[in-house]
Amino acid sequence: MPGIHARRRTALRASLQATELDALLVTDLLNLRYLTGFTGSNGALLLAADDDAKSVFCTDGRYDTQAKRQVPDLHWLIDRPCDLVLVAAAADAGLGRLGFESHRVTVDGHSALVHAAPKVELVRAPGLVEALRVVKDDTEVEALRMACAAADRAFADLVAHNGLRPGRTEKEVARELEQRMLDHGAAGPSFESIVATGANSAVPHHRPTDAVLRRGDLVKMDFGALVDGYHSDMTRTVVLGRAADWQLEIYQLVADAQAAGRAALAPGADVREVDAAAREVIEQAGYGEQFVHGLGHGVGLEIHEAPALSRLGDGKLAAGMAVTVEPGVYLAGRGGVRIEDTLVVRDTAPELLTLTTKELVVV
Amino acid sequence: MPGIHARRRTALRASLQATELDALLVTDLLNLRYLTGFTGSNGALLLAADDDAKSVFCTDGRYDTQAKRQVPDLHWLIDRPCDLVLVAAAADAGLGRLGFESHRVTVDGHSALVHAAPKVELVRAPGLVEALRVVKDDTEVEALRMACAAADRAFADLVAHNGLRPGRTEKEVARELEQRMLDHGAAGPSFESIVATGANSAVPHHRPTDAVLRRGDLVKMDFGALVDGYHSDMTRTVVLGRAADWQLEIYQLVADAQAAGRAALAPGADVREVDAAAREVIEQAGYGEQFVHGLGHGVGLEIHEAPALSRLGDGKLAAGMAVTVEPGVYLAGRGGVRIEDTLVVRDTAPELLTLTTKELVVV
Repeated sequence: MPGIHARRRTALRASLQATELDALLVTDLLNLRYLTGFTGSNGALLLAADDDAKSVFCTDGRYDTQAKRQVPDLHWLIDRPCDLVLVAAAADAGLGRLGFESHRVTVDGHSALVHAAPKVELVRAPGLVEALRVVKDDTEVEALRMACAAADRAFADLVAHNGLRPGRTEKEVARELEQRMLDHGAAGPSFESIVATGANSAVPHHRPTDAVLRRGDLVKMDFGALVDGYHSDMTRTVVLGRAADWQLEIYQLVADAQAAGRAALAPGADVREVDAAAREVIEQAGYGEQFVHGLGHGVGLEIHEAPALSRLGDGKLAAGMAVTVEPGVYLAGRGGVRIEDTLVVRDTAPELLTLTTKELVVV
Repeated sequence: MPGIHARRRTALRASLQATELDALLVTDLLNLRYLTGFTGSNGALLLAADDDAKSVFCTDGRYDTQAKRQVPDLHWLIDRPCDLVLVAAAADAGLGRLGFESHRVTVDGHSALVHAAPKVELVRAPGLVEALRVVKDDTEVEALRMACAAADRAFADLVAHNGLRPGRTEKEVARELEQRMLDHGAAGPSFESIVATGANSAVPHHRPTDAVLRRGDLVKMDFGALVDGYHSDMTRTVVLGRAADWQLEIYQLVADAQAAGRAALAPGADVREVDAAAREVIEQAGYGEQFVHGLGHGVGLEIHEAPALSRLGDGKLAAGMAVTVEPGVYLAGRGGVRIEDTLVVRDTAPELLTLTTKELVVV
């Protein structure tokens, strides 16, 4: 039985044949990882439309040992620069119509390709691998599950060990969260953690500072773990001590909007309608202007990837897509609430990967 | 007195005028940070060749507050997509000959620029900002110094607290090093730390595993800290317990080569000659084949940037360049040694930023 990477390459071949390409030059490193399993910082793949016998993987001498282990099922070359080596290999192999990742290859990089193999017809082929990546296979969902679990457990530990106490700084909390994600198997945080207390919680992308947590503050935490190259993304907002009425009000509002957004996740749903399902809840309460960003985004090998669940998004959901749902209401100078989960769209109800409660946690 | 970012923009203007450009569209985020101080994840700058009065900074709504604080000295727009907004602004302002970063802008991105402002002449202008960045100003050297100090202190703590003891795993050591860098002011590690013990030390870019440190092992650690956006880079190799003769031999050889490489750092030196100065020491000892990479690289806002100190490099050193010097000898299946410093080229002797001893540390 072919391995997962060979199966992904087979799936990609169907797109190549549909666009009448003889081969695709894959230079984006995440796409390369997806198709081969290679995790190094330099490499490329010439994927032939016929079959893997004509495909060639390339990396440089630093990754000789690693490539042998990670890419046992392809011909490969140790040489550099890989893109130019492979376009020349395409010419030698008579692969005359060669797709390239025009959304990734730079203007200067394209000129170098043309120069390296003038007889090859270079055809723009943006997003072919990303179009596959948008629907996650079981291997990917398992990695996402582990990444989300690491974040869930870190948050539980943080609360259990009284990590959210008045007097600590945002930076200290962020660091403890990140440390605890490592304790639970993360290779690292999947992005720069957000910990925002008091008025700072009204800044959607606040960076942790030396600001001190105080009784009565909303504390917004947006963080994720990286496992096997896959990212998790979760936001929870807690209150220190007794919540004020305005805090309860916007918390419940955001929680309702988030539930509406999750309920709208279904195969065939238009991404703008999913955004609207949550946004309408907030707009009807009069806080539409305070929800300043999109509802969510795809998550996988990148922390932000397709599909965008937003008013500017385009397209429909499909089973197997992994997305975040993260509405927020931000009251400048006072505080804000965001609640975010990572989920997988399923034919039945969406599969929730971030399992931490969304009840208001009072610490 | 103009701030550091305004001074950098003034320096860039000289290159624009030399190439007869009316303006440069800066879309690379590190170049943007260098020229404006902006640290967000989305933004662009239209830098007019005349003066800053016609220059425009752009970011999106998430960074409104941050942009006000970080970029107080430029006109700015909150809109998106920034590149298209700014190329249209260039057209409106009559900036007809517009340079773009052709080494960063993708083929598809370029098409979108052409479409957004058909009357603007888009001119390839690769590497103009990088050409300035290669020589560090005092603000940058200070950040590099702090980044190197965080790594030095982390290493000293690790050794002082008996962190390099038999029985620990590579991953545990890597994590402790990274944690201790945070303790000393790093925002994070500047790249994925390498900790490689025993035979693993012969793999130049080994990733930390669960392999256990054992008495008699060479342990190679390549790590760095990130401070104010600037990276440090340092490698030290220690031995656990008494060193074997072959270990002492290659250690001394690499140390001699590294000293020769450092001694060759001087304004006007050809980068290939600097590489050769260290490489010859290793070749003369018969280990040339076991030194499989270049001698070093520039370091700054990127962990790897110009100049490359290697046989394939090109150009000469200048005062103020920050570079690594990192020869290694790798004996497959047995072990390897690399010793690496980060230094600044000076008119007098190079300034050493990584201050940890290069004597063989026996732990």
